Amino acid sequence: MRSDRHKILIDSVKRLLRREAASHLIKIVNKTHAADLSVVFQSLSLSDQRRLFDMIEDIVKKGALFSELYEDTFLNLIDGMELDEIAEILESMPTDDVADLIGRLPDETSNTILEMMEKEGSEEVEDLLRYDDDTAGGIMVPEFIALREDSTAREAIQSLQEEHQDVEMPFYLYVVDEYGKLTGVCSLRQLVVVNPETPLKNFMATDVFSVHTDVDQEEVAKLVARYDILAVPVVDESNKLVGIVTVDDVIDIFREEATEDILKMAGVGEEFVETQSILRSSRIRVPWLLASCIGGLIAFSIIENFEESVKQFAYLAAFIPVIMGMGGNIGTQSSTIVVRGLATGRLSILDIWSVMAKELSIGLILGLIYGSFIAVVAQLHHSTGAVAVAVGLSVICSMSVAALVGSMVPMIFARINIDPAVATGPFVTTAIDIISVFFYFKIATTLLGI
Amino acid sequence: MRSDRHKILIDSVKRLLRREAASHLIKIVNKTHAADLSVVFQSLSLSDQRRLFDMIEDIVKKGALFSELYEDTFLNLIDGMELDEIAEILESMPTDDVADLIGRLPDETSNTILEMMEKEGSEEVEDLLRYDDDTAGGIMVPEFIALREDSTAREAIQSLQEEHQDVEMPFYLYVVDEYGKLTGVCSLRQLVVVNPETPLKNFMATDVFSVHTDVDQEEVAKLVARYDILAVPVVDESNKLVGIVTVDDVIDIFREEATEDILKMAGVGEEFVETQSILRSSRIRVPWLLASCIGGLIAFSIIENFEESVKQFAYLAAFIPVIMGMGGNIGTQSSTIVVRGLATGRLSILDIWSVMAKELSIGLILGLIYGSFIAVVAQLHHSTGAVAVAVGLSVICSMSVAALVGSMVPMIFARINIDPAVATGPFVTTAIDIISVFFYFKIATTLLGI
Repeated sequence: MRSDRHKILIDSVKRLLRREAASHLIKIVNKTHAADLSVVFQSLSLSDQRRLFDMIEDIVKKGALFSELYEDTFLNLIDGMELDEIAEILESMPTDDVADLIGRLPDETSNTILEMMEKEGSEEVEDLLRYDDDTAGGIMVPEFIALREDSTAREAIQSLQEEHQDVEMPFYLYVVDEYGKLTGVCSLRQLVVVNPETPLKNFMATDVFSVHTDVDQEEVAKLVARYDILAVPVVDESNKLVGIVTVDDVIDIFREEATEDILKMAGVGEEFVETQSILRSSRIRVPWLLASCIGGLIAFSIIENFEESVKQFAYLAAFIPVIMGMGGNIGTQSSTIVVRGLATGRLSILDIWSVMAKELSIGLILGLIYGSFIAVVAQLHHSTGAVAVAVGLSVICSMSVAALVGSMVPMIFARINIDPAVATGPFVTTAIDIISVFFYFKIATTLLGI
Repeated sequence: MRSDRHKILIDSVKRLLRREAASHLIKIVNKTHAADLSVVFQSLSLSDQRRLFDMIEDIVKKGALFSELYEDTFLNLIDGMELDEIAEILESMPTDDVADLIGRLPDETSNTILEMMEKEGSEEVEDLLRYDDDTAGGIMVPEFIALREDSTAREAIQSLQEEHQDVEMPFYLYVVDEYGKLTGVCSLRQLVVVNPETPLKNFMATDVFSVHTDVDQEEVAKLVARYDILAVPVVDESNKLVGIVTVDDVIDIFREEATEDILKMAGVGEEFVETQSILRSSRIRVPWLLASCIGGLIAFSIIENFEESVKQFAYLAAFIPVIMGMGGNIGTQSSTIVVRGLATGRLSILDIWSVMAKELSIGLILGLIYGSFIAVVAQLHHSTGAVAVAVGLSVICSMSVAALVGSMVPMIFARINIDPAVATGPFVTTAIDIISVFFYFKIATTLLGI
């Protein structure tokens, strides 16, 4: 539905560009939300993007569009622009977004632009650049409302009217002591419902959550989600309030982290590669396939060792795919459940033993079901009884081991502080392939007496 | 870090329960946030849960805990409670949460409880229950602030002070006409900065986003994320304002949808099964393995057709795992990129041809790289040149087809309105397994002249 709306918008813009209908274009560009404009920009040539960009009248909107564009598009777009125009646009943007964009530019360009920006703005940006991208410090905005404990509600409202026009989402007013340390919080709503002369300290909440600048962004996001709050204050080592992380950034973090996890589990790096060029995408995907290549070659050398058995009982080879497939699929199930369980907090690394025991049991049960089924099919299919038993046993073995390995590997990785998602996908599947093939031929040759 | 904090909390609660230290427990229970209490409850026996639950003094907190508990724990906990106590707790909760919980109860129980609740509350709940769980109507709260266009800022603030104590997060005041139709919106912040006598219509924003009750929750969530707003008004067919969806619910939706997509792609249903019993988990996972079982058996019958060739060249069998593995892994990469790209809006079904062309090119490039590598290994490994060429060609074939199928299937599913995630995982892998094995033996037997 939404893509229909975008399709109509893109088609009209393209038509108007062909017709050079400047006045219509100016109207559309200036009434369309930056988030939608960014979708339109994706589908245009660079020269058309530049034409359209120059039609944007509001500098704040130019900045909003900068934030919405994908990295590649943004870098191409600003490539031909004057640095002082870029600096001027960045000045109109929230500090955290500026820090994000500046971080993508080559060092030389970013230094020049920071020098061109007004002193106060550029200092704030440089402050933010000191923190790691994915920590509370890296994602916070340094604009917030902080008042002293004995200010009254009336004074607080006054300060809202006179200052703090740059504060993005002012739902909370933070209360600090004389050293800037965070002591409480009150909501905009409380402010309007209490008697105007009440000092903040009389109605502020004192059990206020805060995070340190170096806390991982995912932890910050979980805090916001868990306690249903709209913003978390960020404090430095001396507990001084230095910024806030707002709920809109938290949504982006969750979506980003989910995408990262999904891509890592499939072995396609961390960043979304579809918008990159073919050669670049290929380069990113090459190393992730190496694990399965090497695993496949190990399986090759295992089977080669049984070459004589295969010559004698050629149909043994025919069961390789079903045994590998069953092991691989149940292993993916188990590792996915554990990785996502850890990410959402439904599982904890403290549960390692009970989770593994449970997965092993499930592997055994499912192995018994499918092992018997496949053994019956093998028996009906003119094989000897021994082959049917060997195939059935191998499926049971392969599926139990796969469920165990699939749950154990991400748990162990999480325990030693390696991201379970990155390690899970290709490694688990490859390990299971090798184990399955080995068990299968070992069991089959033993049972068939070869 | 967070699980450490929970571990300490759980350990202290357990110790105090053993010691029967009621006064300490009461203190802890009443100062701990419901979200954290729910984690503690997961680790306790049912009788301990009941003891702890009775110690909670604030009825609102009891309700908050109800919302936080996993479904199983919640159902067990209320199983022994008096229905009128449950009704009383539900009355203290936000309507959307009540509707959620009531939806989980057996029909008979839920009807009795609804009858026991005060009329107004139960009617609102029944209204919400009319909408599908995963639509705007199903997730909205019916409590919001709506004022008429000619109300002044002063009157609006007064109404905040006198009424609307039950409104969860009052950041926006909606403005409606005499028929209750939505005409504008103003923020709490505007309210305090304008002159108190200004009528709302003079400063309200009129380009207000709204959604119909039957819009999918994922669309609502995307709207909130895209435009960085804190709440979306929900309107009925006659454009009358009936509720709002707030940003805290949007976060939950995104996390839920990401989990659902991840689980579906791995073939483990939609719901998180790890908290279920072993037998129930096994039952949920059985059908998803059927695809790979049947696929494996089809691969079996293909290979069986080449039994004579395998007898003659037994080491042909040894390459089956590496060819299946390479195809399977690149196919997973491609389908994951497309599924996640569609979910996050980075790809659109309009791009189907360009995405497929790109994936096919990437498959060819990666196939050439790994095909040559594996062919060289095969050649070095005492095989004849023809086998090396056959294996190399098969890898190229398998990887290109896998990349193409992996990107095409989710695109087609999305186009015919089937969730691409559910269809992708097991189906794509199995299809690729069959295709790879077939191509491999066809190419090998042709080249080897058998």
